[in-house]
Amino acid sequence: MKPTFKGTSFSITRRRFLQSAGTTSTVIWLPGMAYAQALEDVQEKLTGVSKWDLDTPALCVDLDHMEHNFSRIRTTTDRNGIGFRPHAKTHKTPAIAELQIADGALGICTAKVGEAAAMIEHGIKKVLMTTCNVTTHKISLAMELCKRSDQFIQAVFQESNARDLSAAAQEAGVIADVVVDVDPGGHRTGIAPGKPALELAQLVDRLPGLRQRGLLCYDGRVQHEINASVRRSQSVQAMEPAADTLEKMRLSGLNTEIFSGGGTGTYNIDHEIPGFTDVQCGSYLFMDMQYLANESLSGDDSYTDFKPSLTVLTTVVNTHIDGMATTDAGQKSLTIHKPDPKVLGESGVSYRTWGDEFGRITYDEPTRTYQVGDKLEVIVPHCDPVVNLYDVMFATRNNRVEHVWPISARGDAQ
Amino acid sequence: MKPTFKGTSFSITRRRFLQSAGTTSTVIWLPGMAYAQALEDVQEKLTGVSKWDLDTPALCVDLDHMEHNFSRIRTTTDRNGIGFRPHAKTHKTPAIAELQIADGALGICTAKVGEAAAMIEHGIKKVLMTTCNVTTHKISLAMELCKRSDQFIQAVFQESNARDLSAAAQEAGVIADVVVDVDPGGHRTGIAPGKPALELAQLVDRLPGLRQRGLLCYDGRVQHEINASVRRSQSVQAMEPAADTLEKMRLSGLNTEIFSGGGTGTYNIDHEIPGFTDVQCGSYLFMDMQYLANESLSGDDSYTDFKPSLTVLTTVVNTHIDGMATTDAGQKSLTIHKPDPKVLGESGVSYRTWGDEFGRITYDEPTRTYQVGDKLEVIVPHCDPVVNLYDVMFATRNNRVEHVWPISARGDAQ
Repeated sequence: MKPTFKGTSFSITRRRFLQSAGTTSTVIWLPGMAYAQALEDVQEKLTGVSKWDLDTPALCVDLDHMEHNFSRIRTTTDRNGIGFRPHAKTHKTPAIAELQIADGALGICTAKVGEAAAMIEHGIKKVLMTTCNVTTHKISLAMELCKRSDQFIQAVFQESNARDLSAAAQEAGVIADVVVDVDPGGHRTGIAPGKPALELAQLVDRLPGLRQRGLLCYDGRVQHEINASVRRSQSVQAMEPAADTLEKMRLSGLNTEIFSGGGTGTYNIDHEIPGFTDVQCGSYLFMDMQYLANESLSGDDSYTDFKPSLTVLTTVVNTHIDGMATTDAGQKSLTIHKPDPKVLGESGVSYRTWGDEFGRITYDEPTRTYQVGDKLEVIVPHCDPVVNLYDVMFATRNNRVEHVWPISARGDAQ
Repeated sequence: MKPTFKGTSFSITRRRFLQSAGTTSTVIWLPGMAYAQALEDVQEKLTGVSKWDLDTPALCVDLDHMEHNFSRIRTTTDRNGIGFRPHAKTHKTPAIAELQIADGALGICTAKVGEAAAMIEHGIKKVLMTTCNVTTHKISLAMELCKRSDQFIQAVFQESNARDLSAAAQEAGVIADVVVDVDPGGHRTGIAPGKPALELAQLVDRLPGLRQRGLLCYDGRVQHEINASVRRSQSVQAMEPAADTLEKMRLSGLNTEIFSGGGTGTYNIDHEIPGFTDVQCGSYLFMDMQYLANESLSGDDSYTDFKPSLTVLTTVVNTHIDGMATTDAGQKSLTIHKPDPKVLGESGVSYRTWGDEFGRITYDEPTRTYQVGDKLEVIVPHCDPVVNLYDVMFATRNNRVEHVWPISARGDAQ
């Protein structure tokens, strides 16, 4: 049992495989690990093709819809006098982060230090990492990132962790930018608001290796509250203690330049929180069945603020039983999150995953017939974990592939 | 909006990044896309370390347990006079496929042509693809694979598909090996047993581009039937029509050398089916919470036939509320499949994922205390989709890393 694969030969083999496949037929195989050169080949061959000619399952984003969503966030936050700092844990795609920053974002957020590293490596310097780094490996990598970007900020919510970061920063010869993560009451991450948070901010301010930049507070519980007015009141209420903490920090003479939080469900609510600076919206650019279930603040039954841009293409592979058909996108392509995927542009048909590898559509009076080889397009249940299954995303406009984007931070859960 | 990333420079940047990180600290960043050279670096640096020094979340396989499971399948199928053809959709790892074949497997199965391509590219030539290729892309790739391996077999369950395959094979100048997939009554894939299946097998036998090798029949419904005697009777009963079909094929003078099916839940039952040749066990080498819920045929309440070898390591990141703690392995590291993950080696503690990025342990009277930075090891809910989230797997023995295996077919859902 010795290691079988040597990296270099592995890479060369895969490239050769793609090339020779290309000379004898139209085969383009999207490898699970999209190696650099293979990716270039795929980009060259698939840019410009109709999305309906892509093999399936394939992850697509409609650029017109995504740009509509960009515009919606920008104009709303502009009008409300706050900024937006989109969460890249959703898309994990440097090309999209670039577009978001070009569109006026203050920077991006990441959930994990591995995502931050992938973004900074691709030239996305303005990164706020919304969780804290507690392991030796992660702290070391975070200090590397401070060297590579003077706009990398990480969260902290424990005194001992703040001391560890400061010591590591001093050893690395950097000053590490830090925001204090305040628990909104969900108890998942963050320090208790009020005195504990204030004292931690004061400690961060004193520690020689750290620069105190403000606070963050994210309440994941309220984002998917369907009732819009309940969502509004619960969110503002949950954020109140953090706002009070920010005010205490200000009165203590601490830096309060950042008060980041909120998400796609509260992007047009968060400006009501005193001192709030920017919303960490993630899903807004894609949408999914979970967010579409929200009522909009303007009274719509569905979350019509944003247009669904992210879809998975799938092919019918079996139709031998009346009223149902098997497709090729199962739980490894769509996850088992709820609500179920929705078939775009058709009515009278339901989609469910059917084990890891297959999906099933069922229909009583469908608007069309289904034949083996037919392609369908579905909206995904929950965008973040679905994106995390794919190595590339096809960015389309008018159903043509404009770009093949590598999802460079896919799998970066560390 | 033009493509931003050029493959080659991307690769070089990543390599440089890893190297320079290595010179200044102990940082090893496992990139989301494990490029060849980066992988080699990681293998060099992490082979031999204690698994408890790995950063988290990390996917590990205990080699002693895996080898126990190998032995269990081999000795049981030997005794029962059938073969085993493990399903690589579970592990997606060529290094493991090699070990399975060295251990006596007839070959491996794959669910998708992309997985088959990844395996054949790595020298695993004996591949039975258990689903059919209906798109132009997949048929072309399948013919490429026929050229690269004279032991690649694919499934077919439609007459038109058989004709398409034959035409493509003739155009490519190959003979494509085919088995007929028979529907066990679940209606997901396969052709109806009896006359329809027999006629399809006869057609395959006649078509100039195809070589008829036998049939497969897989009943996913019975594998997780908890009650062992129900599982036994339901499985044998569900396979009966396929067995009758095989007998009809034999009487018609057709090749019946392959009758493949079954899985980890029926590996010691399938030999009771007349004509059955080999079991497509997938999960047996890893185990997971779903299969552990099965009763064993020998009467145990749990599926003690196989030892859990696959785990995810996770780190405690928050303990500020009594009776619970937050960990760093959420739905992007463990999925939301049920039953919930189980913490190994500890009692009185429950684990649930807590959103995409975090997990939560809760405890009343735990056997230990939990501090920020502590590492835990959990058995995963359902091994296949969890493995599909990771780029590498750490193969350990006595808690030391022996190999860092690339999960080369990860994400190959096409």
